Amino acid sequence: MFARHGFHQSTISQIAREAGVADGTIYLYFKNKDDIMVNFFEYKTRDAFESFRKVVQGAGSAVDKLRALIGRHLDVFQRDPDLAVVYQAETHLRNRMCEDQIKEMSKVYRDIVVEILESGQAEGTMRKDLYIGLVVRFIIGAVDETINTWLHAETAYDLTSMADPLIDLFLNGIGSVGVTADR
Amino acid sequence: MFARHGFHQSTISQIAREAGVADGTIYLYFKNKDDIMVNFFEYKTRDAFESFRKVVQGAGSAVDKLRALIGRHLDVFQRDPDLAVVYQAETHLRNRMCEDQIKEMSKVYRDIVVEILESGQAEGTMRKDLYIGLVVRFIIGAVDETINTWLHAETAYDLTSMADPLIDLFLNGIGSVGVTADR
Repeated sequence: MFARHGFHQSTISQIAREAGVADGTIYLYFKNKDDIMVNFFEYKTRDAFESFRKVVQGAGSAVDKLRALIGRHLDVFQRDPDLAVVYQAETHLRNRMCEDQIKEMSKVYRDIVVEILESGQAEGTMRKDLYIGLVVRFIIGAVDETINTWLHAETAYDLTSMADPLIDLFLNGIGSVGVTADR
Repeated sequence: MFARHGFHQSTISQIAREAGVADGTIYLYFKNKDDIMVNFFEYKTRDAFESFRKVVQGAGSAVDKLRALIGRHLDVFQRDPDLAVVYQAETHLRNRMCEDQIKEMSKVYRDIVVEILESGQAEGTMRKDLYIGLVVRFIIGAVDETINTWLHAETAYDLTSMADPLIDLFLNGIGSVGVTADR
């Protein structure tokens, strides 16, 4: 299972080395490689998603909250490409080892988007006629694809430079104002 | 490799049965399971993406072209959940067996989006200040996440019912008209 994420025995050795213990010692704490993988995924993603929640709660206007979410989302994965690789693979496989963790993280992300939309709707800066479940897919999907494209790019570039153009697309869409709006 | 997509020996048997030949005969035409997988992916995705191109070229206005793309994209994957599973997994793994095919399909999708934007810009219904590479990620990411959520949903629903709400989000975004638009 580890191998499908591009992880190998050397990863266990690396974990052991960083923990300052022998390879075998790792297995006193974890049942097997899959168990390490699930724990790694849970620890890392919970940490990341909690930080999304914190920066969004700390931001003022709804647009600032959206900016905080997208900026942090791209920044976390840029700083930790291993997490990005595991997250991309694990969320898109049919049989997800971390199904429970993914469901929990989806709920966290949904709550964050709800908070953003509610403040935007209260301010009058965001539309009231939105289907929240789809807005969650719309945002996380576009950000994920931006991260995935970055992971597979042939030349290096700063992932966080995509934040502002993404926020503009989320807020304003690709249609000309007042022309295609048939809502 | 096949196993990571949830495919097993029974899939080979099924292919053989549908082709009306013995299991072993399949290996006269393909080197191994990975070779079958790559050929399956290439044949199916090329077919799908060619059909996206055709419906977009056949549509009138830019908005109709966008509607044709999203509608067909969701419809193709809804009709062929096996392709959806393989496509989701293969495009999101670090070491992609079908890297060349994925690169080629990305180019096809990009060309389709360029066609839509160019007609929208000529009509005046779409913004001129768009970064095309990011619009491609924005659209394909949101559609992919909508398909992935559907694949993992606990209750069945019609995937194509998401087309119109998605088109609305792509065109208009989540911001209120004239309020958040700072472009």
